[in-house]
Amino acid sequence: MIADIIKLLHEWDNILIISHASPDGDTLGSAAALMRGLIGIGKNVSFGCSDSIDAKYQYLFDGLPNREFEPDKVVTVDIADTNLMGTLKEPYKDRVDLAIDHHASHRPFGKIEWVEAGSASNAEMIYQLLHEMKIKIDKFMADAIYTGISTDTGCFRYQNVTASTHRVAADVIELGADAGNINRRMFETRSRAQNEAEVMALGAIEFYEDDKCAMLVVTREMMDRIGIRDSELDALVSIPRQIEGVLIGITLKERECGAFKVSVRTNEPANASEICAKLGGGGHKAAAGCSVKGDLETVKQKLLSVCKKHIEDHAL
Amino acid sequence: MIADIIKLLHEWDNILIISHASPDGDTLGSAAALMRGLIGIGKNVSFGCSDSIDAKYQYLFDGLPNREFEPDKVVTVDIADTNLMGTLKEPYKDRVDLAIDHHASHRPFGKIEWVEAGSASNAEMIYQLLHEMKIKIDKFMADAIYTGISTDTGCFRYQNVTASTHRVAADVIELGADAGNINRRMFETRSRAQNEAEVMALGAIEFYEDDKCAMLVVTREMMDRIGIRDSELDALVSIPRQIEGVLIGITLKERECGAFKVSVRTNEPANASEICAKLGGGGHKAAAGCSVKGDLETVKQKLLSVCKKHIEDHAL
Repeated sequence: MIADIIKLLHEWDNILIISHASPDGDTLGSAAALMRGLIGIGKNVSFGCSDSIDAKYQYLFDGLPNREFEPDKVVTVDIADTNLMGTLKEPYKDRVDLAIDHHASHRPFGKIEWVEAGSASNAEMIYQLLHEMKIKIDKFMADAIYTGISTDTGCFRYQNVTASTHRVAADVIELGADAGNINRRMFETRSRAQNEAEVMALGAIEFYEDDKCAMLVVTREMMDRIGIRDSELDALVSIPRQIEGVLIGITLKERECGAFKVSVRTNEPANASEICAKLGGGGHKAAAGCSVKGDLETVKQKLLSVCKKHIEDHAL
Repeated sequence: MIADIIKLLHEWDNILIISHASPDGDTLGSAAALMRGLIGIGKNVSFGCSDSIDAKYQYLFDGLPNREFEPDKVVTVDIADTNLMGTLKEPYKDRVDLAIDHHASHRPFGKIEWVEAGSASNAEMIYQLLHEMKIKIDKFMADAIYTGISTDTGCFRYQNVTASTHRVAADVIELGADAGNINRRMFETRSRAQNEAEVMALGAIEFYEDDKCAMLVVTREMMDRIGIRDSELDALVSIPRQIEGVLIGITLKERECGAFKVSVRTNEPANASEICAKLGGGGHKAAAGCSVKGDLETVKQKLLSVCKKHIEDHAL
């Protein structure tokens, strides 16, 4: 499989690499590392993403050329479904030559599909690819790969981490990845506004279904009052699941367009991916997401009814 | 060095292994793994610790015999200074045959000293020792070593993590360490009381020295009101340092005896170890602790005056 992909990548040129919408550290780290690797062997490469890149990930792209050209080949990284291409879905959904992904929920759409559901992060696959292509992995690529791994594993906390995840981390640290500073930036930095938002949200967690379900709500009114953006509230979503006895932790963040961004985090045997699939979203077993339209009460009730059924169906 | 220690351990018997007072995952994981290893090669081994072991670490000792005998040899793990032996200081401070430690602030007290300040955790050293002794590392030892590593590195977040840390983690995961569940227990579980305490404490963070210093206070009155013990508030101590611009994060937890347990966490170039040394404590550059007597206002002023001087002396 990987040998075929390596052969093709050596043949291809004018390659567009696409990250998923609402880009996270893994899709961006994967894209940045792959771009740098392919540029290093003389390829013309560009990058596409439906949504803007949060400031905290901008370092991944430092020094990368921002080329615009009509691509001959299209590669997606960390994209489980064409819906997650966002605004790039229409122009490119039928033009993906290679889909590299690690989601168990992956729904094939590429001419060539390389999916490793056992890989904790997409970035580990990119490391393997670059390594087997014998491309020299420089400090920038090492940083990008480390960022992908650490952000997609909750910094090595989650069940998805394997011995191989740690070995790739060891390798990229030796290749110059600045792990301590990346982690500090990703996990150990909060603004005073973020702190205030956390106090407000944690103080208002709601419990349902015999406390098996915990829900945290952040409305636009709260965000406006504190002066904080949606993307600055990423750390919050892991909290409801952490509370003892909770199987399903839900975070609702109000979008500007009359919908809520829903993040679901579950403890076994509850399954976040199943819950979000019922609402048109997807993800991993322990972490998934979707977007639900409606006012707060409507969205809450939709979610609670899916959770109730999930708890009943699985006798949780 | 390690070859000499291996030779001696093979010769010794009736060995007491001592963990430091207020024991954490690294000192307990190191002790449990070493005990199991030595028992596995037929040694008579006992365990000593000044303070009781928190329930969340109890699994480390599952199935280990609780022997009482007059030891012929004494080994300390993760102890930087005889003061950290607590109530075991008097009987054993002059009787330590081997001190295994990874603190840069280590003050020698053992007849033989094995100190690796570059090791992120003491447990990594125990892994190396057992590995080189060719002792079969079973699942229980793997869990204990993983627990030591993950708790002393903030689950691989901190600057102290090296490629070697990740390689040992990979090895023990392959040897059966249940990393996901250990991390969930250590980092991803909070009671509703802990959540309430966090809301209360975060909402009351105080800033000093042009916001370079953040202080979080938990009084006995707060703990009693919420119904929570000091040891359940460990996760709080990392928070003040996380706030943007903060160089010195301080957590004060009131003890029952008219003193405060002080946890200091710093961002470079501030140095937690230097700050705590001024108050009779110690630790690492980024994480250190001490105990200060007095009422809240007195303790606060003592700390703030040390921090002010630290900031001035280092022109922070």
